[in-house]
Amino acid sequence: MKLVANNTPTAFDPRATADWLFGELARATVDPGGVGVSRESYGAGEQKAIEIVRRSAEKAGLETGFDAAANLVVTLPGREADKPFIAIGSHLDSVPQGGNYDGAAGVVAGLLTLMRMKTERVVPPRTVKLIAMRGEESAWYGKTCVGSHALFGGLTEQDLMLTNRSGNGSLGEAMQARGADIARIARGETLLDPASVGAYLELHIEQGPVMAARGFPTAIVTGIRGNIRHREVRCIGEAAHSGAVPRWLRRDAVFAVSELITHLDEHWESLQQRGLDLVVTVGIISTNPAEHAMSRVPGEVTFSFEVRSQSSDTLEAFYHLMRTECRTIGNKRKVEFRFDRRLDTKPARMDDAWVERLLRLSKRLGLPAETLPSGAGHDAAIFANEGVPSAMIFVRNEHGSHNPREAMALDDFLKGADLLYHAVVEAT
Amino acid sequence: MKLVANNTPTAFDPRATADWLFGELARATVDPGGVGVSRESYGAGEQKAIEIVRRSAEKAGLETGFDAAANLVVTLPGREADKPFIAIGSHLDSVPQGGNYDGAAGVVAGLLTLMRMKTERVVPPRTVKLIAMRGEESAWYGKTCVGSHALFGGLTEQDLMLTNRSGNGSLGEAMQARGADIARIARGETLLDPASVGAYLELHIEQGPVMAARGFPTAIVTGIRGNIRHREVRCIGEAAHSGAVPRWLRRDAVFAVSELITHLDEHWESLQQRGLDLVVTVGIISTNPAEHAMSRVPGEVTFSFEVRSQSSDTLEAFYHLMRTECRTIGNKRKVEFRFDRRLDTKPARMDDAWVERLLRLSKRLGLPAETLPSGAGHDAAIFANEGVPSAMIFVRNEHGSHNPREAMALDDFLKGADLLYHAVVEAT
Repeated sequence: MKLVANNTPTAFDPRATADWLFGELARATVDPGGVGVSRESYGAGEQKAIEIVRRSAEKAGLETGFDAAANLVVTLPGREADKPFIAIGSHLDSVPQGGNYDGAAGVVAGLLTLMRMKTERVVPPRTVKLIAMRGEESAWYGKTCVGSHALFGGLTEQDLMLTNRSGNGSLGEAMQARGADIARIARGETLLDPASVGAYLELHIEQGPVMAARGFPTAIVTGIRGNIRHREVRCIGEAAHSGAVPRWLRRDAVFAVSELITHLDEHWESLQQRGLDLVVTVGIISTNPAEHAMSRVPGEVTFSFEVRSQSSDTLEAFYHLMRTECRTIGNKRKVEFRFDRRLDTKPARMDDAWVERLLRLSKRLGLPAETLPSGAGHDAAIFANEGVPSAMIFVRNEHGSHNPREAMALDDFLKGADLLYHAVVEAT
Repeated sequence: MKLVANNTPTAFDPRATADWLFGELARATVDPGGVGVSRESYGAGEQKAIEIVRRSAEKAGLETGFDAAANLVVTLPGREADKPFIAIGSHLDSVPQGGNYDGAAGVVAGLLTLMRMKTERVVPPRTVKLIAMRGEESAWYGKTCVGSHALFGGLTEQDLMLTNRSGNGSLGEAMQARGADIARIARGETLLDPASVGAYLELHIEQGPVMAARGFPTAIVTGIRGNIRHREVRCIGEAAHSGAVPRWLRRDAVFAVSELITHLDEHWESLQQRGLDLVVTVGIISTNPAEHAMSRVPGEVTFSFEVRSQSSDTLEAFYHLMRTECRTIGNKRKVEFRFDRRLDTKPARMDDAWVERLLRLSKRLGLPAETLPSGAGHDAAIFANEGVPSAMIFVRNEHGSHNPREAMALDDFLKGADLLYHAVVEAT
């Protein structure tokens, strides 16, 4: 792999640059408690990260600026300025006491790509822009992908009134303080015409353990899963003395919900074996603490429901299956299932042609030509659902994300950044 | 049915007497909040109930007194005072805001039996005693069957130090205030020689819905179930982002516990179909509230476990089955089950000869010759486990017990009381 172009006048060492940038980011945004990094959305830590990236970009001779949503934009102008540009993006905020790579890896990879093109004196036909998004993590204001949603008029006034997790200040105030055009955002104006973006590419660490388990340093994302959720489903049976009510007269909410969950697990297993993309989760379950007793037939259980899939059809089909199971079990066990508001998040498909290109380039670069769905959400989903051809490169990472134990090897990162570079060069 | 003996000099109307007694008990011990009755163990409500029964007994010419555990004892002396006596018993305390019949029905039935024998000028060969027990309900001090345990040296000093649910005063203090010989009780002395009791008979409302569902006004109890319990079992998996961890790498505590409970339910069903007496309950289940999230793979679930049976073998076998399931599911799903202290309560068998006698008498009186296990505990279990031949008559009751909606028809009660009377007369 040729990381430094032989015919460039200035030496450019991607490894040293990346190493320095990640170190600088970690040092500047270490959590006040000393554990992990904290880059609050539209807050001090995120701002420090943005300044580090901006200064490095300017030092490399790249143009920098901020869009109307206060995202940092680094530009390498192309020869044909009127043609749609290629966007490279990711975010610079983190969860509280988070890891150094969730978000930042994609921004650093984008910056390396622009630096390398600049160093190699490549003047691409199309303009290439790195958009370092703000506010992707929902941990601070309860809303995810704020920076990208804002670009496409996707924030409501209600969203802007969301309160910071500290209890002080609103999202709108924080955005305004960083220079975002709150009036336009509140009106839901389109700040970035999707037609002006030829493609959106994002490198991100994998947040699950699949690539580490399978030995893939890089992989190509096929889609970003959507989901259907209920925060709270209540199963209503009848409380009774466990010793005094026989089996055939029981209306036991715990047995009913256990049977439901076991059936959902079995359906999940068999549908997945048939090749469907599907994840089923009951993250919360509880009998009523006010009625807790070892010897009480539980009359009520509440639980959450979540199904994720890259396919809207699979989501709907599984949701329907779940409701049918509830009816069947409800009749059989004389319990009733009551549902709160159904919450929907649409899946986002990555662009087929881009996935093909990235797989082909991976092969050429000696990287695994492997695909993976993304279970977690990303800014790329917002761009994709606006009709921008979008694609993602995942880099292997251990211990999951959203915690200080994130572990991405620099070697893996450089492979992913190299793949991104080649993809951008080919696309421009 | 001949409820009033034709050849008696004084008129005795069991229906009117029972109606008056139940009314008087309800009026005297209504909860201060106006909902249900509250007859606190060794407290004011229980004392009022005891006084009502005592005055009625004395008015009928019966001997009354208190034993060394402060239980009310009403005596109809027999001709052969040195022979073991026949005990009729139940309790006069209730849970807070409880129903009028749980306990009191058995005491009233016993009193009616003695009154009727007295009115009919029956001088039985053997002495018959009604023991109106105190402190059967665990709701006040956390200990069940205090009055009967005390008789057989079954209370520890720790038990006597148990605090009232109000937070003020100990069980020992309350017992002493009612005249119990606390010094002897604390030493675990036997206050009543089991060998002096020829039989112990108890009438009680059914606390479950079986008899109402099957149309039995009365039924004979075969045994009082014991149980094995764990207050808290913890299932430890691994918390993770639901979207990012694939099925094969999940260590999901909710799926594991749901599978366990579903298997226990299936085992229960098939063992019961094979004729085993068995009740399985998971009354409490909860994910960790500190980690609650819809999109989090649940890394921990806690739950309670209870198995009840009349057979110690069945209890042990099912407990073993449960532990085996935990190991199997633990291996399969890579989770771990951790158990707190196992709690045991022994089953009590009712006396076979007595069950036969009561069934035979039921037939003769036109009552169903049907048997039923008792799921809940009773003073009869304490007597039975001391080697006293013991038996119980259940009377139909709707809406369960331990609540103001208890509903026992006076007609059903009188049938049960009549059965008790005939059994006592035959046994003396």
